[in-house]
Amino acid sequence: MKVIEQEVPVSFNYNVYFTRGLFERDNSLFSDIIAKASPEVARKVLFIIDSGVTEHHPGLPEQIKGYAEAYEDHFRMVPELQVIPGGEEAKNDPDIVGQLHEAVNRANLDRHSYIAAVGGGAVLDTAGYAAGTAHRGIRLVRIPTTVLAQNDAGIGVKNGVNAFGKKNFLGTFAPPFAVLNDASFLQTLDHRDWRSGISEAVKVALLKDAAFFEFLEEQATALNNRDEEVMDHLIYRCAELHMQHIATSGDPFEMGSSRPLDFGHWSAHKLEQLTDYNLRHGEAVAIGLALDCIYSTLAGMLSEEECRRILRMLKAAGFRLFTPELSNRTDEPENPASIFYGLEEFREHLGGELTIMLLEGIGKGREVHEVDFDLYREAIAELKLFEEQCIEV
Amino acid sequence: MKVIEQEVPVSFNYNVYFTRGLFERDNSLFSDIIAKASPEVARKVLFIIDSGVTEHHPGLPEQIKGYAEAYEDHFRMVPELQVIPGGEEAKNDPDIVGQLHEAVNRANLDRHSYIAAVGGGAVLDTAGYAAGTAHRGIRLVRIPTTVLAQNDAGIGVKNGVNAFGKKNFLGTFAPPFAVLNDASFLQTLDHRDWRSGISEAVKVALLKDAAFFEFLEEQATALNNRDEEVMDHLIYRCAELHMQHIATSGDPFEMGSSRPLDFGHWSAHKLEQLTDYNLRHGEAVAIGLALDCIYSTLAGMLSEEECRRILRMLKAAGFRLFTPELSNRTDEPENPASIFYGLEEFREHLGGELTIMLLEGIGKGREVHEVDFDLYREAIAELKLFEEQCIEV
Repeated sequence: MKVIEQEVPVSFNYNVYFTRGLFERDNSLFSDIIAKASPEVARKVLFIIDSGVTEHHPGLPEQIKGYAEAYEDHFRMVPELQVIPGGEEAKNDPDIVGQLHEAVNRANLDRHSYIAAVGGGAVLDTAGYAAGTAHRGIRLVRIPTTVLAQNDAGIGVKNGVNAFGKKNFLGTFAPPFAVLNDASFLQTLDHRDWRSGISEAVKVALLKDAAFFEFLEEQATALNNRDEEVMDHLIYRCAELHMQHIATSGDPFEMGSSRPLDFGHWSAHKLEQLTDYNLRHGEAVAIGLALDCIYSTLAGMLSEEECRRILRMLKAAGFRLFTPELSNRTDEPENPASIFYGLEEFREHLGGELTIMLLEGIGKGREVHEVDFDLYREAIAELKLFEEQCIEV
Repeated sequence: MKVIEQEVPVSFNYNVYFTRGLFERDNSLFSDIIAKASPEVARKVLFIIDSGVTEHHPGLPEQIKGYAEAYEDHFRMVPELQVIPGGEEAKNDPDIVGQLHEAVNRANLDRHSYIAAVGGGAVLDTAGYAAGTAHRGIRLVRIPTTVLAQNDAGIGVKNGVNAFGKKNFLGTFAPPFAVLNDASFLQTLDHRDWRSGISEAVKVALLKDAAFFEFLEEQATALNNRDEEVMDHLIYRCAELHMQHIATSGDPFEMGSSRPLDFGHWSAHKLEQLTDYNLRHGEAVAIGLALDCIYSTLAGMLSEEECRRILRMLKAAGFRLFTPELSNRTDEPENPASIFYGLEEFREHLGGELTIMLLEGIGKGREVHEVDFDLYREAIAELKLFEEQCIEV
């Protein structure tokens, strides 16, 4: 038997830019990054916009058209903008990806054309999947408009939509051409969306950067009061830590089983589902982090003092840290209505041995492969008590 | 303005194995490659089979089931096999990919499960697209059953289906987990399919390996007479050259504009379309190669003697080198019915400047960016004459 061994090295390069007023005429950033990649010809750009964004910025489509006119030597806007529903609806509606493919076809885009997606994480995921599969990948410029999208969901290498009731059942790994974080979009976020992205920053700080956690701890109240400068720093540092992780993890396309950034996420995913997505992802993550910190302490890994600091920080940022679904059927881990069933779903998702990340100290995670349900029940009870005490105060 | 620069290096590794009787019980290759990747647990494998293959091998599904039973400690076959239409129909039917996704869902496959696709290039492309997009990529074992799939279409990093009347409108770059070339499938190919894969071997030999061309030249008649040993060598060397090219081209995911292996392909693609796909890809490529060799000679790049050797080799392998569609509307290059319109379509596909590969000598290509239509008309006339003379003899 003969064998040919193949190794295909591929390197993906993209920049994440931080700006304000992206489509104001005197901001040439968008035009520059397109023109730089193909100076010889003005490439086509199809815009896909989150309906939540056009609601808060009804003038945006016109502004983009004006911008495109001003820079028509550098890129050609496809006249027909695509506005798609914001939030999980973008990922749940099985027709949207097909509609976007049709738009790509009508506009005769090719692999050197661009899709510019403006919106929250769900819209970026949906537009990204359409872009990643049309002509085996049209260049995608992501313009995330929420905190969560700017510091986490919008800067990575994945896309996806839901199918068969399963989150991200369809998707690809497809690094973007560029990401443009425009801080001015954050001003119009409703408060839950403003806050929602903070928990992912807390998570990555707890795993990777104690000094960043101290910053978040000091600034938690300022964040809750919508201090934009503090938020700018949070987003920048969180994006940077996420990107370093993707670049250096050794497994950016997740071919193995380990998901070292999924701290607090096994219960967060389950809580989103158990609350019918009434909890936003970031809100569920805050609860998941709090729970796993208490568990880490009960398991003798994390000091009580550090655990308290983390819980207090999350409360100061305005997060609710308990929800009744946490106490669902905790005596029946095999019941899909039990929070503990989330562990099994998490294991299935990883496709192998259960691996969850816990905390040894602020800035230092530790992976474990089994859990003690009694200890988790105790952790849930403690979290409930903590939340009740906070509300009383 | 702040910028974070991201570089994500990803390395894809896969082997191409050459075997016979893949699903005979004493051939443990298939089981071994699965078991080696996950010794701790028997992973699920969903089989997708080309209806053309089950037609010639009606016992194959039962054979695979028996094989799976024999190796059940190493992998678990999903009981429900998927048989999908062979040939371009697999890529044209918009429902098939959805059906395959449903099968993935029903079987609860995850990213550590496998799809094993058995068939010609079109079925591998379709199954590959379904595998590449479910859960952001289920491991794909390609089992190509035609010459073309074993030496070219089945060993690379792409997949795709047709949409909106455009070839490969949907697809991704997704290297396989492994490729298993089973030579016994070739015995039942009809003669056009047997021959069809030879032209891609001629192409890659002409561009990269003069000694391989000499082998093909010597063995052309043997190939036409279905000498299996000669075909084994053709497939192995052609696969090896293709894989070397993918690994070392510097652009395996085709982010740039150059397509250096597309020698003879601008007219081949157009001829497939102009003949309503009555010409198989490999048959069209043989004509495209002949045409571009004559043109290279008329343009003063290639010696007349080398050009003759190439034409004679293709004839000895049994290829028809002229088809009336070549002479369509050659005075109207902008007419979509003209063969020359294929140049514009090729340029559009590349998304930039026209770049076509011609020949300087056997084993040595040269890219050009413009063509002389008069010279091409002359080349077409010469090719027609050559074919007529061959038929007379």
